[in-house]
Amino acid sequence: MGEQQDNRSRSEQPVSDQQGSEQQDSQKRAVTVIVGGVAGGMSAATRLRRLDEQREIVVFERGEHVSFANCGLPYHVSGTIASRDALLLQSPEGLAKRFRLDVRVRTEVVAIDRAARTVTARDLVTGELSSQPYDTLVLSPGASPRGSAALAGDFRVHTLRDVSDLDRIMASLAITVDDAPLREAVVLGGGYIGVELAENLLARGLSVTLVQRGAQLLPALDAEMAAPFAEHMVDAGIRLRLGAEVVGTTAVGASADPTDDVLLLSDGSTLPADLIFSAIGVQPSSAIAAEAGLAIGPNGGILVDAMHRSSDPAIFAVGDAAEKADAVSGEPRLLPLAGPANRHGRAVADTIAGAPDSGSPSPRALGTAIVGFRGLAAASVGWNERALRSRGRAVRVLHSHPLSHAGYYPGAEMLSLKLLVDPETDLILGAQAVGRDGVDKRIDVIATAMSAGLTASALADLELAYAPQFGSAKDPINLLGYLNSNRAAGHDRTLQWHELDEAVAAGAFLLDVRAPGQLAEGLIPGATHIPVEQLRDRHHELPNGPIVVHCRVGQGAHTAARLLGNLGHDVVNLDGGYLTWRDAQRAAALASPSPTPDAAVLTETEGAIR
Amino acid sequence: MGEQQDNRSRSEQPVSDQQGSEQQDSQKRAVTVIVGGVAGGMSAATRLRRLDEQREIVVFERGEHVSFANCGLPYHVSGTIASRDALLLQSPEGLAKRFRLDVRVRTEVVAIDRAARTVTARDLVTGELSSQPYDTLVLSPGASPRGSAALAGDFRVHTLRDVSDLDRIMASLAITVDDAPLREAVVLGGGYIGVELAENLLARGLSVTLVQRGAQLLPALDAEMAAPFAEHMVDAGIRLRLGAEVVGTTAVGASADPTDDVLLLSDGSTLPADLIFSAIGVQPSSAIAAEAGLAIGPNGGILVDAMHRSSDPAIFAVGDAAEKADAVSGEPRLLPLAGPANRHGRAVADTIAGAPDSGSPSPRALGTAIVGFRGLAAASVGWNERALRSRGRAVRVLHSHPLSHAGYYPGAEMLSLKLLVDPETDLILGAQAVGRDGVDKRIDVIATAMSAGLTASALADLELAYAPQFGSAKDPINLLGYLNSNRAAGHDRTLQWHELDEAVAAGAFLLDVRAPGQLAEGLIPGATHIPVEQLRDRHHELPNGPIVVHCRVGQGAHTAARLLGNLGHDVVNLDGGYLTWRDAQRAAALASPSPTPDAAVLTETEGAIR
Repeated sequence: MGEQQDNRSRSEQPVSDQQGSEQQDSQKRAVTVIVGGVAGGMSAATRLRRLDEQREIVVFERGEHVSFANCGLPYHVSGTIASRDALLLQSPEGLAKRFRLDVRVRTEVVAIDRAARTVTARDLVTGELSSQPYDTLVLSPGASPRGSAALAGDFRVHTLRDVSDLDRIMASLAITVDDAPLREAVVLGGGYIGVELAENLLARGLSVTLVQRGAQLLPALDAEMAAPFAEHMVDAGIRLRLGAEVVGTTAVGASADPTDDVLLLSDGSTLPADLIFSAIGVQPSSAIAAEAGLAIGPNGGILVDAMHRSSDPAIFAVGDAAEKADAVSGEPRLLPLAGPANRHGRAVADTIAGAPDSGSPSPRALGTAIVGFRGLAAASVGWNERALRSRGRAVRVLHSHPLSHAGYYPGAEMLSLKLLVDPETDLILGAQAVGRDGVDKRIDVIATAMSAGLTASALADLELAYAPQFGSAKDPINLLGYLNSNRAAGHDRTLQWHELDEAVAAGAFLLDVRAPGQLAEGLIPGATHIPVEQLRDRHHELPNGPIVVHCRVGQGAHTAARLLGNLGHDVVNLDGGYLTWRDAQRAAALASPSPTPDAAVLTETEGAIR
Repeated sequence: MGEQQDNRSRSEQPVSDQQGSEQQDSQKRAVTVIVGGVAGGMSAATRLRRLDEQREIVVFERGEHVSFANCGLPYHVSGTIASRDALLLQSPEGLAKRFRLDVRVRTEVVAIDRAARTVTARDLVTGELSSQPYDTLVLSPGASPRGSAALAGDFRVHTLRDVSDLDRIMASLAITVDDAPLREAVVLGGGYIGVELAENLLARGLSVTLVQRGAQLLPALDAEMAAPFAEHMVDAGIRLRLGAEVVGTTAVGASADPTDDVLLLSDGSTLPADLIFSAIGVQPSSAIAAEAGLAIGPNGGILVDAMHRSSDPAIFAVGDAAEKADAVSGEPRLLPLAGPANRHGRAVADTIAGAPDSGSPSPRALGTAIVGFRGLAAASVGWNERALRSRGRAVRVLHSHPLSHAGYYPGAEMLSLKLLVDPETDLILGAQAVGRDGVDKRIDVIATAMSAGLTASALADLELAYAPQFGSAKDPINLLGYLNSNRAAGHDRTLQWHELDEAVAAGAFLLDVRAPGQLAEGLIPGATHIPVEQLRDRHHELPNGPIVVHCRVGQGAHTAARLLGNLGHDVVNLDGGYLTWRDAQRAAALASPSPTPDAAVLTETEGAIR
């Protein structure tokens, strides 16, 4: 904790002498060495050249390619991105011409001598070692895939981090046995990369099973938000195995026919597996930094300040290998995302070149991210409810299910939104969105609001672009602000889906106020139905005790709860309505190993209510 | 000016006694009267009921319908919104049931007696007058279309403000002459409504001419931003007549065949016109407010403070009839948009009900708006360059042409973006966007940044959701931030398209650094071509004097300008590159009456350069 606080306080000190990291000699040109030639490293290199024509800039890249489109790699598997060349954004030759960069691919930096200010590099083709002096050093080595211990050495296992990995995957996919291609693909890991791999393998015609150790898909989201996305994948043909992990294999390589090979899962079941894709996370490539005595953060990444400077002022670190201050907690975290890597690389170049008005500290990390699967998108920013509650943070939770644009204009799609708010400060702690249209827009607006320190209530007043094909006069973002200000003002007392069973068990009366036509969608067991329009006349039918009221999405129930409250009833609104409750049931069903999850869940719920 | 300042300062005073506007009598129920039952009025009414079950709420609506989807009306003309009923969001009966509202349609409030706190209403069917007392009064009467004086009384002229207008239009479109429907439609006004009408009339199969008095379409945008949108409309088959207005008619009603009728334009030409749609703007319906002695703003709307309170504390005004404080100037402005009307109606209800923690002042108006035409969108927020320069405001202008998402993922579409920045404070003054995809998202993010007071440079660090089908690792928004911080730091000295001719005439050397394959798109006359990759070797070919460098969009030219500047040349970058320059030429061609605009423009430009 002491180290983290050191990091925090250091990150708030501006660098007073922007050239301080280089002991410039007027006789020789300054040399900047950059380790890693993809997102962060190459952004630093090209920006530095634009700022300083004279400097020597040497880029070492362990792989064969620089500046490739890492986030596009999975889409070549299906042919969605048809051309492999489209993924190669720059070549060493092109970078030499345009930016006079000395780019050395297939060359790995294996040691840093901080006292001598040199790095030792190994040519991965010849094995030759060489020494390269630096005035400033930028570390952007990225991260390496974490492996499944149970599959160590298994030739079927692929990871996907660079173009060479992709080439190996494409070669494996071209293998045929008895004139048929390999068919059974197993993807390990239900994060963004795992989902993208599953989508593209399925699109290529493979049979795909996704194995996720945790009880839900997409751990950046909360379970009830991830559930509809997971169901969408199942509907498309992906077999999901949640709450399971690979513990071993049978017959690996023992048979001439690889289709005989199977994986053993922790639940005792087996899976056929011709090809295995491991996407269970990455670990920062911080070994040479650690060996050189640089401070390492609590998550194993290189510790840096807000200027991306490591514990050695001549060495900077960006990208997947570096830890960044988290926007919500202020603590160091990893952030293996392309956007921040690019921006931080550029910021480091500003600091190194000592550009006036540049070199300002980078803001803390929100971790905004998005993933798609066949037209459905899931996105998140900041912290989720699970993480906040596990830290004991007080949190106000809001669910909504608005339409992506005006309902009367064709093509409107339902969004599911979740907002997490600090009840003390009204600041936004996180948000999640799932839907077919407008997910990226809403998360981007919330990310911008979080960056700027807007309160959740201020979302109500944002002036967003409205025409009926693009949004609503009351945009989903405005509605979140309304919901939040109602909650903050005590106008909308709510109950979360996971609090319902306990409330009902304690005697609360469950009231369903949906329009009669909406009941076909499903019922919460034990609810009594009175449409909101009949409540003024029929409220005397209600008991004197506590009432939980729900509608489809929470809005009609808000009207009902206001009405009943004004008439003297003790009433709370089920946040997110029937749809959020149903999503939570789906999450439980997906996590359960039962072959008939729906029946199991209904019984379980009824059991809790009776 | 004094009045405006009064308004400004008043708007910053919180209302200390939230119930002060009502002289409550404990014996009787408070009465709120609302004039206007659409966006602002109905938002006020329903919110007020949710906050207060006891209050009497009376809503007077001049028209036949309440709470209809005004922004959807044009789309029923083409059948895009097939069902007229889909536009009727609420009925008086439904509102009575759900919200216990006393809604009186076809009833016009004709006078306010502020001393007696009563309104006089006329039943538009019977002509009967009645008096209705109020404790608080909310004015949301909207605006009425401005008419073309030259067409006063012409039976062919339609406006489109409500469902009754729509019914009349649909009836006219059903008229046939010799078994053929009316064919020649003329739309007056090139703002958002005019464009939407033109789109939907064209989709219905009519021949459409759009007549716009100003020299450009979409006056919310600057000319070079509106030009590609206008060209897209022309390509779709709309005949555009810019810089023209109707001055008279011939043969109106003189012939049995209405297709003989023509309009006379200010340029001396004539237009066939079976049907005429007037969309040349609206004027606030503030007459009864003025007659009652309420303060009226400089634009003819009801003057209110930030709590939407008029000069009479018992009377509030929202929507098209009220003036709001502008976010950029602080001065009162009109804002005939649905979103703010809805939000302000709700805010007024909070104030009237005295809800704790509610009733906070509304933020100043940005005027965010968007319009679509056959897949292309144009959006804007804040002020445009024309307005800023006409007020003598210093402004930093940035143009960019990024892709809507990663270029290597299929379906990326080019966006044109423009950002207007206060060079003193770095605050964003306005933005414009045109493109097929992602326009609404980028404008919404910028609107949020403006609301929050983020600087333009802070756009560089926003963490926006990125996967290749949704954006780029360096999102177009981040790139605007980069551009701006380069400009602020003096790293990117630029020239605007309208400054080019003068610079070249003064002897500047015009250098085109595009890739050779990009030249086919077109050339700026007089430019010398050296690709950026060859500049290090060939820069000695350049003269010693000032150089204007350009590429396709401004990015390669930035690299070139940095390189040449670092080598000692005096160089500026043409902002927005060839594409912005071409858009400006197109704007000039569209505004010119020449039948062969392209040829005319090239000659004109060459003339200025030689």
